[in-house]
Amino acid sequence: MPRTGAARYLPILDWGRRYDGAMLSSDLVAAVIVTVMLIPQSLAYAMLAGLPAEVGLYASVLPLIAYGIFGTSRTLAVGPVAVVSLMTASAIGEIAAQGTATYVAAAMLLALMSGVMLIAMGLFRLGFVANFLSHPVISGFITASGLLIAASQLKYVLGIPAGGGTLTEIFAGLAGTIGQTNGPTLAVGLSVLAFLYFVRLRLKPILVGTGLAPRLADFLTKAGPVLAVAGTIFATSLFDLGERGVALVGAIPPGLPVPAVPGLDLELIRALAVPALLISLIGFVESVSVAQTLAAKRRQRIIPDQELIGLGAANIASAISSGYPVTGGFARSVVNFDAGAQTPAAGMFTAVGIAGATLFLTPLLAELPRATLAATIIVAVLSLVDVGAIRRVWTYSKIDFSAMAATILGTLFLGVETGVVAGVALSLLLHLYRSSRPHMAIVGNVPGTEHFRNVERHSVVTCPEILSIRVDESLYFANSRYLEDRIAELTADRPELKHLILMCPAVNAIDASALESLEEINHRLGAAGVTLHLSEVKGPVMDRLKRSHFLQDLSGEVFLSQYQAVQKLSGRPPA
Amino acid sequence: MPRTGAARYLPILDWGRRYDGAMLSSDLVAAVIVTVMLIPQSLAYAMLAGLPAEVGLYASVLPLIAYGIFGTSRTLAVGPVAVVSLMTASAIGEIAAQGTATYVAAAMLLALMSGVMLIAMGLFRLGFVANFLSHPVISGFITASGLLIAASQLKYVLGIPAGGGTLTEIFAGLAGTIGQTNGPTLAVGLSVLAFLYFVRLRLKPILVGTGLAPRLADFLTKAGPVLAVAGTIFATSLFDLGERGVALVGAIPPGLPVPAVPGLDLELIRALAVPALLISLIGFVESVSVAQTLAAKRRQRIIPDQELIGLGAANIASAISSGYPVTGGFARSVVNFDAGAQTPAAGMFTAVGIAGATLFLTPLLAELPRATLAATIIVAVLSLVDVGAIRRVWTYSKIDFSAMAATILGTLFLGVETGVVAGVALSLLLHLYRSSRPHMAIVGNVPGTEHFRNVERHSVVTCPEILSIRVDESLYFANSRYLEDRIAELTADRPELKHLILMCPAVNAIDASALESLEEINHRLGAAGVTLHLSEVKGPVMDRLKRSHFLQDLSGEVFLSQYQAVQKLSGRPPA
Repeated sequence: MPRTGAARYLPILDWGRRYDGAMLSSDLVAAVIVTVMLIPQSLAYAMLAGLPAEVGLYASVLPLIAYGIFGTSRTLAVGPVAVVSLMTASAIGEIAAQGTATYVAAAMLLALMSGVMLIAMGLFRLGFVANFLSHPVISGFITASGLLIAASQLKYVLGIPAGGGTLTEIFAGLAGTIGQTNGPTLAVGLSVLAFLYFVRLRLKPILVGTGLAPRLADFLTKAGPVLAVAGTIFATSLFDLGERGVALVGAIPPGLPVPAVPGLDLELIRALAVPALLISLIGFVESVSVAQTLAAKRRQRIIPDQELIGLGAANIASAISSGYPVTGGFARSVVNFDAGAQTPAAGMFTAVGIAGATLFLTPLLAELPRATLAATIIVAVLSLVDVGAIRRVWTYSKIDFSAMAATILGTLFLGVETGVVAGVALSLLLHLYRSSRPHMAIVGNVPGTEHFRNVERHSVVTCPEILSIRVDESLYFANSRYLEDRIAELTADRPELKHLILMCPAVNAIDASALESLEEINHRLGAAGVTLHLSEVKGPVMDRLKRSHFLQDLSGEVFLSQYQAVQKLSGRPPA
Repeated sequence: MPRTGAARYLPILDWGRRYDGAMLSSDLVAAVIVTVMLIPQSLAYAMLAGLPAEVGLYASVLPLIAYGIFGTSRTLAVGPVAVVSLMTASAIGEIAAQGTATYVAAAMLLALMSGVMLIAMGLFRLGFVANFLSHPVISGFITASGLLIAASQLKYVLGIPAGGGTLTEIFAGLAGTIGQTNGPTLAVGLSVLAFLYFVRLRLKPILVGTGLAPRLADFLTKAGPVLAVAGTIFATSLFDLGERGVALVGAIPPGLPVPAVPGLDLELIRALAVPALLISLIGFVESVSVAQTLAAKRRQRIIPDQELIGLGAANIASAISSGYPVTGGFARSVVNFDAGAQTPAAGMFTAVGIAGATLFLTPLLAELPRATLAATIIVAVLSLVDVGAIRRVWTYSKIDFSAMAATILGTLFLGVETGVVAGVALSLLLHLYRSSRPHMAIVGNVPGTEHFRNVERHSVVTCPEILSIRVDESLYFANSRYLEDRIAELTADRPELKHLILMCPAVNAIDASALESLEEINHRLGAAGVTLHLSEVKGPVMDRLKRSHFLQDLSGEVFLSQYQAVQKLSGRPPA
């Protein structure tokens, strides 16, 4: 359905009108499941971002409501996610120390900037910018982020004061302080890791084996992290772990934050501009690809430009409620979808659930070991590491692989932003390099047809007076000089040559530089007594050529098809 | 002739072996004419670069000999040129004040860096980098440089202390100090301007009219600047212009400089890296295009990678002989060619001429008014302004024009380097933007042929069960999502559709991102009961697809030609 008027920018007007009791009960069930999953995740990702744990809860209330109003996906679960949390830590780590008020304020500002950028991209239809992040770059970045995050959390599992932003720094930090490992912390961390892996890999079949309904068994496995949180809070008070050197989350201020606009410091805005843009783009790409996959399963559509506005609104909502950058999460959205969420109302109900948890459960969280959250993060992010994708790209294309490898190595060893920027820059440069040396084939007629193919790959008919060259690329500044050189090479040593036909079905554009080169080629061939012809020139290219003098100056003709060209120039139909 | 072994890197071994008396006399005549032209130019361009006048002479001796040994053009005249002198002034102006020893040392270092970069590009076959400077960007840059240089020289004609690097600054400076205009200076400046324009536009026909041989008349018009220099030196001593406030070149140290390696200051090297790269690329592109044009006229060839080495050697020679960056000059090379130069020996003889002038004529130059040199520069550079090229590009393509306009406006108002970088960046971005939204056409059979064309432009035959879509672009990350969206659009509202044929003659590459999109499209169409086929897939693209699972998963077939596809799928030959 084409959306128009207010419903174009407020999708809630569309689905809200048809909301009924069946949808309500589906959405409520999904909301309960997602809430249970989101409580430990939001605490853990805030910690990963270098923020107090409660900031994760704040980022899981208003943003979900804002996305519900403006977003076009029925099932996307918005909130704190691992990769964006890592990028937040990396961006603000340069500017302020963790634990300071400046750090928290910078996170709010980052969310605000990201929100404004996303909305601006949505309003000005600039979503295509995200296309410059190629699949291999994104997939490499996610894999590298997973590894980096997992490594960065080891210090909490060991209870040591290591630090560092890159893999080298992290391992140097771990190696330097591993002697200070805290036994009780390690015990908590390893227990939680073991428990979570057991739940993830083994629990469901066991529960189903005991006769439990698969759906309920599924729900219980999603509750693993919450059970780990509850269990380790209980263990903390039972064994007085806080006194034994186990780092705890500590007191969380009661209640919900009062909405407020983050302070606008120009200096800070300048420093955060590039990270905010990268967070916006990566967050958008990830979110849209989840949303698209889920929408396709139910034959629904999402509108990318409106998604930008939805995610932008969510980030602005996060900024004014003391949160930090958010986006659509992969695992959580899949759970939301599987749990039967029908509309964005499910996300709104989740927001209510998180608000309730913030109001009533935070006193309990003071006793939560940080090692529990670190273990939760490790288990979650290791599933982001996709070795199969690396192998597939390696097999398919070494060029794509090199962009992927640059992203992975850059992210791991030079930093998160450097990794993404290096990957994007390399993929663009390699694309330009490839198109600057286009494939050119001498073609001949496939006998019995009007079709022409490469003489080196097919058994075709040619004639010594006519050379047909197919150029497999748009002609533009980066390859126009190469074209001149190649044609000079291909026409040399052919004394009987009278006609050169440039077959142009793959020439999608001819820019001003290439036009000058074609004029030069026409001129040089003319001086050598060879006539230049074109065939199968596309409509838009022909329209443009008509605006120049080239067609008047061309020594030969422009033919509709290569077959007609060869028929006419050879004076007989080819064999 | 394919050059091998030592002759590959030392073209002198090639032409030197066949050198004879006829060549010698031709080269000597050309050398005399170019020397006469080069003396005032080298002084003027050194002044334009903010350097003492004698540096221009130094840069016109060893570099010419080095190019003669390593260069592949028979007629290119290397030495100081206007645009590179402007770029030198702009680069060093940021670092040191004119008239200081640091300034002169930085110019030598800049030549050394540019030389090393050029040789490195030549050895590693990186000449293609220059292709990223599109014709409109270069042509716009040259035009803007011409205007900027002419404006910058007005202060010498007026005899006022104005300054400034951008057009705005220059005019502000002129407006602020025009009240201090020195009458005698202005008189010298305007006289020289009038004389040079008279010589350039009127003298030759008059001389030929008096019965002089055209060749000699031509030579005399080239001697205009030298006559202006001699005349104003004479006028200076006659009217004691130095005492009347006319700025003079002043005492020039006698003799030639002792070769020495410039000081290598790391800080300075870092500051000059980007300017040195731009100077190298612009100098190379300009030089190669002159060399190629002249070589084509005599059916000779130049080898771009070896040209990089030739120009690199020239710049290193300039650096160690107290010079500054040099390259092949357009006007001077044309004069050299027209005067009958046969081999690079002509350049070597020119070097000897300049060395002689430096040794014996410099005492006279102390009395030369700077206004004379400024007028020489103005007349030379205004011929660089090419309004016709701007108009042609505007007519042909607004995209190319916008890159050109960015270059011109950037160069005039923001600075020389900003202008080039802005033009290159914009032309790359616009190229990517264009290819990110490829042209896609629904095609049908041209009756009576096996040819398929756009249904909107040609009268063709189609069939409702088969949709043939031709994609006019390589499929890569920047357009893969667009492809998904467009195919979804084009297949919607066609309930009778059974087959979709993607006609791929213009698809020159499919990268990993596009492969994922094709898999997604295949999957989605399959779910909707539509079979996906490909036709006219090129050899290299097919080879790559075979490395993935796509061909196994494809619901339909891959056809050699679109005609065969439609014949088979429709079960009958099209009407």
